[in-house]
Amino acid sequence: MISEFELIRRYFTKAAGKYTRLGIGDDCALIKVNEGMELALSTDMLVSGTHFFSDVSASQLGHKVLAVNLSDMAAMGGQPRWCTLAAALPEANETWVAAFAEGFFALADRFEVDLIGGDTTKGPLNFCVQIMGEVRTGKALLRGGAKVEDDIWVSGELGGAALMLKHLQGQILLSEELVQQCAKRLHTPEPRVALGLKLINIANSCIDVSDGLIADLGHILERSQVGAELWLGAIPSPLIPDIDSLELYQCMLAGGDDYELCFTAAKDKRALIDDISSSLKLRLSRIGIIKRESGLVVKDHQQNVVELAIKGFDHFG
Amino acid sequence: MISEFELIRRYFTKAAGKYTRLGIGDDCALIKVNEGMELALSTDMLVSGTHFFSDVSASQLGHKVLAVNLSDMAAMGGQPRWCTLAAALPEANETWVAAFAEGFFALADRFEVDLIGGDTTKGPLNFCVQIMGEVRTGKALLRGGAKVEDDIWVSGELGGAALMLKHLQGQILLSEELVQQCAKRLHTPEPRVALGLKLINIANSCIDVSDGLIADLGHILERSQVGAELWLGAIPSPLIPDIDSLELYQCMLAGGDDYELCFTAAKDKRALIDDISSSLKLRLSRIGIIKRESGLVVKDHQQNVVELAIKGFDHFG
Repeated sequence: MISEFELIRRYFTKAAGKYTRLGIGDDCALIKVNEGMELALSTDMLVSGTHFFSDVSASQLGHKVLAVNLSDMAAMGGQPRWCTLAAALPEANETWVAAFAEGFFALADRFEVDLIGGDTTKGPLNFCVQIMGEVRTGKALLRGGAKVEDDIWVSGELGGAALMLKHLQGQILLSEELVQQCAKRLHTPEPRVALGLKLINIANSCIDVSDGLIADLGHILERSQVGAELWLGAIPSPLIPDIDSLELYQCMLAGGDDYELCFTAAKDKRALIDDISSSLKLRLSRIGIIKRESGLVVKDHQQNVVELAIKGFDHFG
Repeated sequence: MISEFELIRRYFTKAAGKYTRLGIGDDCALIKVNEGMELALSTDMLVSGTHFFSDVSASQLGHKVLAVNLSDMAAMGGQPRWCTLAAALPEANETWVAAFAEGFFALADRFEVDLIGGDTTKGPLNFCVQIMGEVRTGKALLRGGAKVEDDIWVSGELGGAALMLKHLQGQILLSEELVQQCAKRLHTPEPRVALGLKLINIANSCIDVSDGLIADLGHILERSQVGAELWLGAIPSPLIPDIDSLELYQCMLAGGDDYELCFTAAKDKRALIDDISSSLKLRLSRIGIIKRESGLVVKDHQQNVVELAIKGFDHFG
């Protein structure tokens, strides 16, 4: 059986990049934060049976554990630079670990993120990544900055990951074409790092949609002490004419795992935001407006208020 | 059942300290690293059944998951300032979580460490802490700096945690007095942060003894490309006349979980190190010497070479 140290040496030790003073191999890693910058950091733990099926592709899982953390960095407008990875594995299956590392580093390399530390242990399958990055002091995109009359925006499409999950659970049957589209959303989400960076000085508030739009926008509203009106017809989603519309709305509004950015910005930023959309080739949709009155009102295509029995994901709810 | 958000709000949200710009509650935390300092960081994952018994005291476990990380910071000579905590819990048992938080924050407050982020999820019991701190640029205590003729030192006593583990597993029977002494070593280890800070500019290399002295000193030797001679009779341990001496040696040399510091320093630093020992009221023992020839030789009280069939802990070995 391959040893813990050999596993780390063979699959998880890479040359440190230019922002890393000392990477894997000592009691701590050492990094230097550039002058005028704050360090932004976030951590997410993914557990077999809770966040992914035990038979998930190792390579896709390697991608996803990093992607969900990069998404938190994106939501702050941060430039990701470093990460750590702690893993509990039931056994040291070298083929599986190699595939996991391949998925992980393919994404890490694309975003120029250094893996600078971690831990490997025996236990029920569990991955904990901490992402670290830089953001100019005082410029981070926070949840608490939404202002009355701000437009509410969302990137990409919502609901794809939740639809795929329902398909895998046998609750709905997606067409071959939609499976292709939605599987990517669930298994290899694309963190919106470039968008987050471009939203600095433009967005008043920002969050990534990981628990579902209603829940995550709810955090913005709570922190900013405002309310909002959402327009169902404006929320972008995979086009699924054969799915019951209530089921689709549930996925769009409360389906987690989308990892798009939801942000608010003043009306006079619309042209700038459209330019960002063009330059990134990323759909950015205006889906509502921030209101002075607390609470969240959702309106349908006919401007009728929709009653929602929808909440975001709560692990112990 | 208490919700995930309420659990975090009630037990894990504290006012941020003066080095934290933004603590728990947004997509990322924000910290500012002081000028002239590098950020040191380390992460450790503790899993039920692998690192602790499932019926362990929640309060002691709260202490330990932070202590083992603080120990890594100590081994670099770093000043701990911030940490994150990710936890997978089988259920949201509020009493258990409250006791865990009490043990965790008692230690965090003592070392003035801010909990600035984390994650809570459902799953087999698992804790992942990342510790972050500051160390003056270029001054960190590394594993690779040991020099030929350096003294090898160790703090405190070795073997207590491993003896307690053997006692709990029914392999040996400790006296009531020794149980008291060794239980502390296993359940609530004391990270040697103050020692690490004082060793800057004094020690040439340093590591914390988490996997066992032989294994951890082995990392120093490998990184420094040197060998060493260890003196069994000089290694401090709980006084256990009724334990078979081979079993005691096994615990002293290969027992993990001690969290003492092993460091090397030039001979002319002996007086300074004795002063540190006095000022910290912490035993510091000279237990060997660094040699040019690679390999580790252990000598007994009569200066005879002892053959060792001992290795450190490997999770997949």
